[in-house]
Amino acid sequence: MTKEDYLKAGERFDDLERNGLVIIQNPEKFCFGMDAVLLSGFAKAGANAQVCDMCTGTGIIPILMSAKTDAKHFDALEIQEESADMARRSVLANELQDRINIITGDIKKATALLGKSRYDVVTVNPPYMKSGNGLVNPEDDLAIARHEILCSLEDVVREAAGLLKTGGHLFMVHRPQRLADIFSELEKYKMEPKRLKMVQATKDKKPSMILVDAVKNGGRELIVEAPVIIYDELGEYSEEIRTVYGY
Amino acid sequence: MTKEDYLKAGERFDDLERNGLVIIQNPEKFCFGMDAVLLSGFAKAGANAQVCDMCTGTGIIPILMSAKTDAKHFDALEIQEESADMARRSVLANELQDRINIITGDIKKATALLGKSRYDVVTVNPPYMKSGNGLVNPEDDLAIARHEILCSLEDVVREAAGLLKTGGHLFMVHRPQRLADIFSELEKYKMEPKRLKMVQATKDKKPSMILVDAVKNGGRELIVEAPVIIYDELGEYSEEIRTVYGY
Repeated sequence: MTKEDYLKAGERFDDLERNGLVIIQNPEKFCFGMDAVLLSGFAKAGANAQVCDMCTGTGIIPILMSAKTDAKHFDALEIQEESADMARRSVLANELQDRINIITGDIKKATALLGKSRYDVVTVNPPYMKSGNGLVNPEDDLAIARHEILCSLEDVVREAAGLLKTGGHLFMVHRPQRLADIFSELEKYKMEPKRLKMVQATKDKKPSMILVDAVKNGGRELIVEAPVIIYDELGEYSEEIRTVYGY
Repeated sequence: MTKEDYLKAGERFDDLERNGLVIIQNPEKFCFGMDAVLLSGFAKAGANAQVCDMCTGTGIIPILMSAKTDAKHFDALEIQEESADMARRSVLANELQDRINIITGDIKKATALLGKSRYDVVTVNPPYMKSGNGLVNPEDDLAIARHEILCSLEDVVREAAGLLKTGGHLFMVHRPQRLADIFSELEKYKMEPKRLKMVQATKDKKPSMILVDAVKNGGRELIVEAPVIIYDELGEYSEEIRTVYGY
């Protein structure tokens, strides 16, 4: 069996340029973006950490974090079977099946599915946009990945709080315009924001993404870090992107 | 009577380098800083606006905003009589007594003192640091200006919400590490954060101040703006500081 046997029609391997890792993607479907790469660089996990990635999609976060951290084990939850299937085949193609387990399931029931207070780290790159405007097609896998159709921000925070041990970290990438919502939901579920990092295309641009590190039952002590600047003055990826946040 | 007649022992006029404005300060007491200058540039007030500045100290915010905006009238509240007295003399020295009224009074009772739902704009540069650590001297005017001895963040937000008309704006400068507290108190008093701006010494430094614009009874719609960078690559004040946020 060769690596290519893991591919289905329309799919390809994309090289992650790190430890020889690859990921299976279908260019016509949802493909990972800079947000997932940033989250995998922002998240921290110790050597014995049990990690859960919610809304894992094609599994990009646990696959990148398997190279960037020494975390012991990753459970990765995805509601769309087609994406979960691609993620499972990527895990096999990278021979990571001992460290990464892809589970098809509903985020809204993550704690019931996976167990209460079991994880040291939860990561999530959730849908960013509020649903309810009636313009999105709930059958559309791209819409599901981008809009809060199958899970809301509150679902994400509530389940992360359920899954985490006291003192465990939730690492989330989201949009700046949702910051007030995020802080409000975190407070509701006793998840204390500890680190906040804005991400900007250039130093003069307003932030396009935010990275949040929140601790279950943590005390109030927030550090707003220096922003990540994606492009330098020459329009190239900045040093920080290439080293800390690169693949 | 000359301008110098407004000065008491130990005091001096500091030139605000804008419209010939001056401010009376005592170099041994609390003097205004970059935070006040930034707030006066971040705040907006229309031509007929009724403005209230809480924790006005020596009156720097209404004095600067009298030049930067066409706001009709400023009420400025200060609990320490010595500071309020300096502010009143600065107002007279600038011949602004028709537009700026300095009131000695307790922020915690601002709505009762000044009236409910009366203002279009509230500005505040409050004490940044939580009190309660027992290390500060409550008799110390510097400590009062910097620590939440005589008013807490909750007092500030509650009274701002009381003073403002629906749709009115609270403009506040504060510290990044209080962002979670700020959003929490704003939500409690139905003040919706609309604009958030980080302030950094240089593009690589973490933010040292935040500027918040919140609207009474506003809908959820937050814009995180590009950060203010205080110094350029040469260590000089940046273009933005010199134009938008300058005195």
